[in-house]
Amino acid sequence: MDNASWFTEVASEAGSAFSLKVSKKLHQEQTPFQKIEIYQTEGFGNLMVIDGFIMLSTRENFFYHEMMSHPVLFTHPDPKIIWIIGGGDCGTLREVLKHQQVQKVIQIDIDERVTRLAEQYFPELCQSNDDPRAELKFIDGIEWVKQAEPNSVDIIIVDSTDPIGPAKGLFSKDFYRDCCHCLTEQGIIIQQSESPLFHMTILGDMRKAMWEAGFANLQTLFFPQCVYPSGWWSATMASKNELKTFRKNDSDNKKFSTNYYNSEIHQAALAQPEFFKKAMQIS
Amino acid sequence: MDNASWFTEVASEAGSAFSLKVSKKLHQEQTPFQKIEIYQTEGFGNLMVIDGFIMLSTRENFFYHEMMSHPVLFTHPDPKIIWIIGGGDCGTLREVLKHQQVQKVIQIDIDERVTRLAEQYFPELCQSNDDPRAELKFIDGIEWVKQAEPNSVDIIIVDSTDPIGPAKGLFSKDFYRDCCHCLTEQGIIIQQSESPLFHMTILGDMRKAMWEAGFANLQTLFFPQCVYPSGWWSATMASKNELKTFRKNDSDNKKFSTNYYNSEIHQAALAQPEFFKKAMQIS
Repeated sequence: MDNASWFTEVASEAGSAFSLKVSKKLHQEQTPFQKIEIYQTEGFGNLMVIDGFIMLSTRENFFYHEMMSHPVLFTHPDPKIIWIIGGGDCGTLREVLKHQQVQKVIQIDIDERVTRLAEQYFPELCQSNDDPRAELKFIDGIEWVKQAEPNSVDIIIVDSTDPIGPAKGLFSKDFYRDCCHCLTEQGIIIQQSESPLFHMTILGDMRKAMWEAGFANLQTLFFPQCVYPSGWWSATMASKNELKTFRKNDSDNKKFSTNYYNSEIHQAALAQPEFFKKAMQIS
Repeated sequence: MDNASWFTEVASEAGSAFSLKVSKKLHQEQTPFQKIEIYQTEGFGNLMVIDGFIMLSTRENFFYHEMMSHPVLFTHPDPKIIWIIGGGDCGTLREVLKHQQVQKVIQIDIDERVTRLAEQYFPELCQSNDDPRAELKFIDGIEWVKQAEPNSVDIIIVDSTDPIGPAKGLFSKDFYRDCCHCLTEQGIIIQQSESPLFHMTILGDMRKAMWEAGFANLQTLFFPQCVYPSGWWSATMASKNELKTFRKNDSDNKKFSTNYYNSEIHQAALAQPEFFKKAMQIS
């Protein structure tokens, strides 16, 4: 392998690495928050890398964006007000806005440069940014949630980087307690929760912190995500009340198209591997 | 990345690569059929590589072996006679033998050296090789199936390498026709069917060949497989009659332990992604 023509991310915790063949480096900058790189790849379209970690590519981002949005939106009985913490590439925003009953989506990413670069290199993800229901704020999501009114939001989607660097606070009990406070009684939070194969400690700590913060019901979802370590990823939903309201009929009859998600995939994502049940002591 | 201490498999069709950090090369040989290498890795235990392609590691082989065996065995109404074509590492054999009603398993791998090396470097996979119900043959699986009696087997598991080299014939219509001939009326074949993200052409051609060979019912399963290209893999079940007999109660009450598989995972694996349904014209 000729290192010069590949972008490689090493998962040192697992002794593995994933590489994409690149044809050109399109952009690089250091923002006040992180280092962002954009590459043109041979097989995956454009690639965004933050602080050395692959964030998304043109070819495969649909898995992540669809699974961070549609399962939680079809689980909440009537989602109207949505916040996206992070999500600066706007792909999750685009998916959320496909739901017609949604009245307002506020995306809160600390780094405006992520969005400006997404507009340039991933324009298809930003095609709903001008929707009148969308509002983009470039401020600290942790502060936003801390200062928010109680009972003011139906769903909080935490679409963040890994729990190191600027996103560390988004995996803390204090943050979850603030989220719990501003969610309505039926409210749900969903957060990307790393690889079920490589990061069971992070996943377990995160579930524990959510539970201690007041979320009595947790549900982890599993889905393929080929550019992230292990190629397999998870997201965890949490709510004060039971998470048993999958609106299957609405999902079956959704009025918009998806690439990975459908109602069978929704239910499949909820199935918990045997090792996961044992580790999390889920019967 | 220091190339010297990594084993890398390039998926040239996708412009991606997966690497494992290796601490030592334990073995290498050229058999009459293929080149086999064994490595000790830092995070994945031992690793077997055939003709440059990663076959399995100690850490993650459970995904593949469990999903090649338990779904098909819990789908057949009464599996007694099983053939495994390929599968020389004996991991699938071990899983199949966990089912008490199975009376006879014949494993037919063309290359005895795969099994001998598995005994040495993956002894946990070979722990059931002395089961009186198991028989290991080191002959050509294509010839075996061609010469077999009609209605003589309940399940054929094709646990092969990719459709290049010695395994090419295992993806052909002629082979499937021979399998169809020796399977009982309720019989089922299952075969690994590559990555749903990278190899849709192979998958489509394989399903078409199975259908044309006389298998009226096809069902593709999806599961994580982090050491194979894209980290996401599939297997396809085919039968002459309907594949709707999942013995859920038996699966729920199975008497053996697994690491990934359980009855919810079984059902989840059957969910078909939206892009797959469109490509395969499945309604």
